[in-house]
Formats: sequence, C-alpha cells, structure tokens
Amino acid sequence: MKIAVDAMGGDYAPEETVLGAIEAVHAYSLDVVLVGEEIKIRRLLEKHGAAENIHIAVVHAGQVIEMHEHPAQAIRKKKDASILVATRLVKEGKCDAVVAPGSTGAAVSAALLGLGRIKGIERPCIATPIPSKKGITVLLDSGANANSKPKHLIEGAIMGSHYAKYILGINKPQVGLLNIGEEASKGNELCQATYPVLEQLKTISFFGNVEGRDIPEGTVDVVVCDGFVGNVILKFGEGMALFIIKLVKEAIKNSGFIAKLGALAVYPALKTLKKRLDFTEYGGAPLLGVNGSFIICHGSSKAKAIKNAIRVADELVVQDVVGHIRKSIEEEQVEQYDGEEV
Amino acid sequence: MKIAVDAMGGDYAPEETVLGAIEAVHAYSLDVVLVGEEIKIRRLLEKHGAAENIHIAVVHAGQVIEMHEHPAQAIRKKKDASILVATRLVKEGKCDAVVAPGSTGAAVSAALLGLGRIKGIERPCIATPIPSKKGITVLLDSGANANSKPKHLIEGAIMGSHYAKYILGINKPQVGLLNIGEEASKGNELCQATYPVLEQLKTISFFGNVEGRDIPEGTVDVVVCDGFVGNVILKFGEGMALFIIKLVKEAIKNSGFIAKLGALAVYPALKTLKKRLDFTEYGGAPLLGVNGSFIICHGSSKAKAIKNAIRVADELVVQDVVGHIRKSIEEEQVEQYDGEEV
Repeated sequence: MKIAVDAMGGDYAPEETVLGAIEAVHAYSLDVVLVGEEIKIRRLLEKHGAAENIHIAVVHAGQVIEMHEHPAQAIRKKKDASILVATRLVKEGKCDAVVAPGSTGAAVSAALLGLGRIKGIERPCIATPIPSKKGITVLLDSGANANSKPKHLIEGAIMGSHYAKYILGINKPQVGLLNIGEEASKGNELCQATYPVLEQLKTISFFGNVEGRDIPEGTVDVVVCDGFVGNVILKFGEGMALFIIKLVKEAIKNSGFIAKLGALAVYPALKTLKKRLDFTEYGGAPLLGVNGSFIICHGSSKAKAIKNAIRVADELVVQDVVGHIRKSIEEEQVEQYDGEEV
Repeated sequence: MKIAVDAMGGDYAPEETVLGAIEAVHAYSLDVVLVGEEIKIRRLLEKHGAAENIHIAVVHAGQVIEMHEHPAQAIRKKKDASILVATRLVKEGKCDAVVAPGSTGAAVSAALLGLGRIKGIERPCIATPIPSKKGITVLLDSGANANSKPKHLIEGAIMGSHYAKYILGINKPQVGLLNIGEEASKGNELCQATYPVLEQLKTISFFGNVEGRDIPEGTVDVVVCDGFVGNVILKFGEGMALFIIKLVKEAIKNSGFIAKLGALAVYPALKTLKKRLDFTEYGGAPLLGVNGSFIICHGSSKAKAIKNAIRVADELVVQDVVGHIRKSIEEEQVEQYDGEEV
C-alpha cells in the first residue's frame, strides 16, 4: 500500500503534511510518497528523524497551486504542480491513493483530469463525514457540483451508501434526500424529480426525505443533496459550532463564582468537544466517482488530520470502494438517466 | 393599532396564543384581535382575568388548518379557517397586521390569497432573524420559495434590507449573497446571474458574496438565498444548537468532580444560551412582499414568542416597512427582470 500525499497543499504545508505522513507510517502498515519540493521535504524528514524511514519516499514536484488561484486555470498552467504529480502516480499505478490538502477546487480538477470518471458517473462528489447524535452522518455532495441535476443526486446516493458501508462499517446504510418537508411531493424541482428514482434503486436503502435538523440528529447515515447546499451547510455548521462554544464560555464567565470555579475544569471538556465537532478530524472527505481513491483535506489541516486522511485513503483502497461503486452504477444502469431530466 | 392573531395556530394553541396576547396588551400600547373558536378563547381570557380587557377583542372562526394538512388545499377548502379570517381582517382594514403561528405553508397561502403581492414582487419571502456574533443576521428567503430565479433573490435583497433598517434599526444594512466562494464568478448559475444585478441596485448596500460561516459570524446584516437553501440552513442550525448544548452537558458530566460541581451553576447559563439560540424568541419571521404586515411564528411558539411577534408586527406597521418596500421596488424597476433570466 502506497499513499501519495500532496506535501505542499494546505496552510501548514509542508511542515504538517510531512509530520502527518511520519505519524501515519508509524501507526499503520503502509508507505507514503510525499510529493513536492524535495529539498524542503527531505530537510523536514531529517529534522524529525525520519530521513532513513524506508516507508517514506519523496517525489519532486516543482510547482504548487496556491489557495487563491483559479483551480481549473492553475491546473492547466502548472503541469508540474504537486497535486497533479501526486495524482499521476496513482494513474500510473505507482501509488494506490491520493491525499490532497489545500484548495478543494484544484483537487477536484486534478482528480478529474488525472484519473477521469467511473463509467456511468457524470459528476463525482465530495462526501463529508459530519458528527451527529448517533455518530457520523455522511453529507454529499458537499461542494464538487453546484448545479446538480437529478442524475447527480442519484449517483451521490449510490456512492455515499458504499462509503458508509465500507468505510464507516454500517451494514445497511439508510440514505435520505435532503429536503424541506417529509412528503415525497415536497421541495424544489430537483428533489421532486429525484425522489421517485431513489425509491426504485435496488442497491441502496432509501429512507425518504430528511430535513436540515436530521443531519445532527443522525436520522439517516447518508444525506444526499446538491453541492451548493452541502457546501453552505458544512461551512455554516463549522461557524455555528465555534460560535456556540464561544457563547458557552461567555455564559460561564458571566455566571456566579461556583460556575467560574467549575469552568476551569469545564474548559478541557469544551476543547474535546471542539475537536469532536471539527469536521477535519475525521480524516478528510473522499472525492467519490473518480477512477481512483482520492481524499480531499481541509486547507487548515494539521498533522493529525493528514494522518487520519492517510488512514481513510488506505481503507478506501483495501475495501475497494471504487470497485463497489463501479459495480452498482452498472447494476442500476445509471447511464439511462440523462443529466437534465430523469 | 390592532393586531389580528390566529389564536388557533401552532402546537400550543389556543392557550399560549391567548396568553401571549394578554401579555402583549399589558406590555405595549396596542389592541389584539384573537381569531378562532370564540367560546374556547373567551373561557381562556376569563381564566386569566382578561375577559373585560378593552384591548382584546375576539372574532369567531369555525375552522382550523392543522399542521399535517396540505396548505394550499386546506386554504381552498376551509373558507372559515382562523388564519383566513385573520388575514381578511387586515384586507378589510379592520386590523393592521396578522400574527400567524402554525403551518408556514398555510400562512403563506393565506397571505397570498388574502392580501396579494406588492406590485412588482413576484415571490414574497420569509425573513428569519438568526443570532450571530454581532447580534442578528436576517436570512431570507427561509422557506417561501424553493425554486428561486435571480429576480426573486433581487426582490429578497431589497426587502431584507428594509427589514434590517426599519425593524432592527441598522442604518445602512450590508446585504450579502449566500454563495460557496467569495469571487463574483463563484457558485451556481442562480448566484452567478444574481450577483451583477445586486451590484447595480441603488437602494441597497451590496457587500458581495458571503459563505455559510458568515451567518453566525455576522459578516453582513442580511443574507439572501433561495428558500430551499434558507430553510435547510434554518432547520440544520436549530438541530446543531440543540446537539451542541447536549454535547456540552455530556462533556461536563464526564469531567472530574470540580467540573460537576461547577456544572450545577453552569446549567442556568446553558439555559440562557439555549434561549439566545432559539430562533423563535426573536418574534417570528415576517413574510415580506405581500400587501400587508404579516408575521409567521414557529409551530411550537409559546406565549413569549407570540408576545414578541405581536411587538414586531406593531413595528412593521409603525415603520411602514410595506410602504418602503413598495417604493424601492418601484425605484429599482424590479419588474424589468422577468422571473426566468436577468
């Protein structure tokens, strides 16, 4: 098992990506290939006593795509960008999966260009694990495709179901369609057209419509929605979590003496909570629907998030999630639906 | 000033609606007309010592629209439904505003049927105040229109701006377009088509694109989006808030002895926090764009929420928000945009 990591991606690269890779090879039985500026990476490996680690290789890439660049344009211009070189390693069979911190747009572009789509899939999507009362709810698409047609939600339902089954270990994952009412007739045109097809799919267990509150409630294991909606929810949720924890701290501060005394002991608990609500802790979000295992990490990923992402990338390969998706897409004859109507 | 309250609407009607009305007439200088089953309402007024209160009148309505009914169908069938009778009182000039707890769909249908749209407005929308770091962010549309075209977001931007100015007292409200990136070119087709028009409007102060995290952050005063997205966010936010508070309690419980001791004092603070995050506390959500002042309240509204909604209804009338919207819509020549493209 060899995981290619874009060592230059994200706000804390390459320090934290290199550190995450070192932690991963210590924790799991796999190899990591760090892709990026070789001199910098080797210097960091040396600094952390991993220069001679036989489970870590370095492949040089002379360019980096920055967060502010236009993803598709940058991918076209910078042929030697670390994310492209990492993706190529998988395409050429030299690595088994990619871990890509940094610009989501650049990662999606690199994956589409470098790996291509699974036959029958029109729009790959990003599956993000979100903490819920019952554990984890998978939200997809969370940002790859902002103008979904019914076909794309159908693809998402199938792919999300496999992710929940093989990576989260849920035996018969329940899939919900994110809507603004429970009845089949509710919602916007996209949902109304998608619902009856989801009901007919053979390879997933369709729960029906779910609403926004069902995501933290954990009513279903997989929530399918358009990428615009999913991305807005994700960022809103991150902001809300930080805001509420801030309010809790203020509420404690403004309480009486005993509360303040208790607060000293409560703060570590709040810190744990913050971590539980930190979506990045869960090991990145796989881009499902491309011909290969590809994990996208938050731009602000630190070593632990990188390490987790490497573990999830490993599981994606071991469980052959791409193969299972390929089989279902074929079985459901998803190509019968065109992108515009179903 | 006379506010018509649908006394039969919501999970706790008519007890809590009547109680809310009594509290409102004690707190503010206005009259309330309670619409619904007269005998039940009069009995409750008597029970709470308000049978002789000259600021409370009762108008009988023999039917009620239940939460589970199909809104538009129920409105057509039940001509004597309390929400329709209340709306008619405003239409006929006998009352100045409606307060409608209960089914949002029924309220919107009743308002459209009973009051009609402001000239130039194609889709009225629901403006919901959301707590943020800086105070309140107005989110609209939060559920009236699930298939928005650019024209509808433009209408929303103008209406939300007036609401923020006259009801929240913000001098030059900043209006943001909810999107999944900051640049003008980002997002789905709806946002891409809406952005350049918002830039040109003369009667609002357009900030540009905002993302999900900007809502709790309070980056702008008004956030404009499609009703599907707004409704999902609203319900997701409510669910998240409850979930996080539950996690905080658990985190405290699982901490050491001192934390538990402190927790006893922290719980009241958490309760206050829960209230601050309770969107219903803010006095309901106005339906903007109809020919009249119309406030929609959460189905689970209790007396305090009803009282707050009556206060906001009063302010809507005093500040002539409908008149200001009418003027801006005319000035911006909103009717030049058809519903499909801009």
